[in-house]
Amino acid sequence: MLAKKIAAEAAVEFVQSGMTVGLGTGSTAYYAIHKIAERVKEGLHIRTVASSRQSEELALQLGIPVVPLSGIQEIDVSIDGADEVDANYNLIKGGGGALLREKILAAHSKQFVVIADESKQVDRLGKFPLPVEIVPFAFNLTLLKLKALGCEPVVRIADGNTFISDNGNYIVDCAFGTIEDPAALEQQINAIPGVVENGLFTGMASAVIIGYEDGTTRRTDITR
Amino acid sequence: MLAKKIAAEAAVEFVQSGMTVGLGTGSTAYYAIHKIAERVKEGLHIRTVASSRQSEELALQLGIPVVPLSGIQEIDVSIDGADEVDANYNLIKGGGGALLREKILAAHSKQFVVIADESKQVDRLGKFPLPVEIVPFAFNLTLLKLKALGCEPVVRIADGNTFISDNGNYIVDCAFGTIEDPAALEQQINAIPGVVENGLFTGMASAVIIGYEDGTTRRTDITR
Repeated sequence: MLAKKIAAEAAVEFVQSGMTVGLGTGSTAYYAIHKIAERVKEGLHIRTVASSRQSEELALQLGIPVVPLSGIQEIDVSIDGADEVDANYNLIKGGGGALLREKILAAHSKQFVVIADESKQVDRLGKFPLPVEIVPFAFNLTLLKLKALGCEPVVRIADGNTFISDNGNYIVDCAFGTIEDPAALEQQINAIPGVVENGLFTGMASAVIIGYEDGTTRRTDITR
Repeated sequence: MLAKKIAAEAAVEFVQSGMTVGLGTGSTAYYAIHKIAERVKEGLHIRTVASSRQSEELALQLGIPVVPLSGIQEIDVSIDGADEVDANYNLIKGGGGALLREKILAAHSKQFVVIADESKQVDRLGKFPLPVEIVPFAFNLTLLKLKALGCEPVVRIADGNTFISDNGNYIVDCAFGTIEDPAALEQQINAIPGVVENGLFTGMASAVIIGYEDGTTRRTDITR
């Protein structure tokens, strides 16, 4: 877990007083939220918006100011994990089920800082099943359309029941194998009626910080 | 209203015994559902799926068998209205707020028959504000992204409250003026995180039936 922790802590260097900060969701974002809480105790003045109820609760417990997104026009920096990061800094996200809110935050952030341990680095995306958020209505038909794109879609189950996202939708985990063209697939999936959003984040990261178990981190800044 | 009624009735000629039929929503689809009910009383054997609670209730009241979409693999023919039909048979739909379910039905229909009175014909789409279904979470940010595409987005209000779709989402009416490239815009809007679906239906109609107040109809079959 050292690798996750040091990547997360390095990302918090992007945060400065006066900023609006987007909080990601998941095990790596967890460490970032803890580090942000430390810095708030030391006097850092920020406001945050959360990508899940889970992260919002954690932040509030740790004394980090959380505001609703309704009052925000733009986020200065969002820090979030990823399930896979490819050589072009495209991502698969959504293992935790919060992909839509995470993607909304990322899309409205001036800087989107991705943190991951070394195990998340891949040459090409697709070994991790791609999470896709779909509306419950006629979900069986939406599964057929996803299948037609060349994957094996499985509706996510949690504790014996269909997993329900924070937005009241289902998550489908789509095993594609290797994804040849992530940007094209992202668009094709979003064009299916019934799909709300998918976990491909292409062309969004502005910095990627990878943590290694040997205690080092590698930070790449991406200019677009 | 004659024009709507005769277009709707002409469309019902597509329906044959044994078919699974998709029922649209709105004032023109209303006439189609009534005509289908007549034919069911005369002995037509079909099952239907509905694009809204409203159409489902109407169909059930009139004695038309309605089945849930969960048991269906494909729809033989769907009949639905449109708010605008352009010269290439692209549509704007969603004035009634049921665009997502209507689009799911259309996408899974072997034949998608569009019915409209002559007032709905336009050279190019966009005078009718384009309905877009968005998730309530961070809707203010989603509005900014829609605005950036060149429209004036207005969250739909009904009876003094925010209109809520059958899927629990908001509808935003986006006045674009003239839409130069409907297929491109359909894709651009669906790529915005927070957008569930939009009312542009491009390349979907397999037949368009226009009704005229002089009592005539014109049917165009589209081969793709």
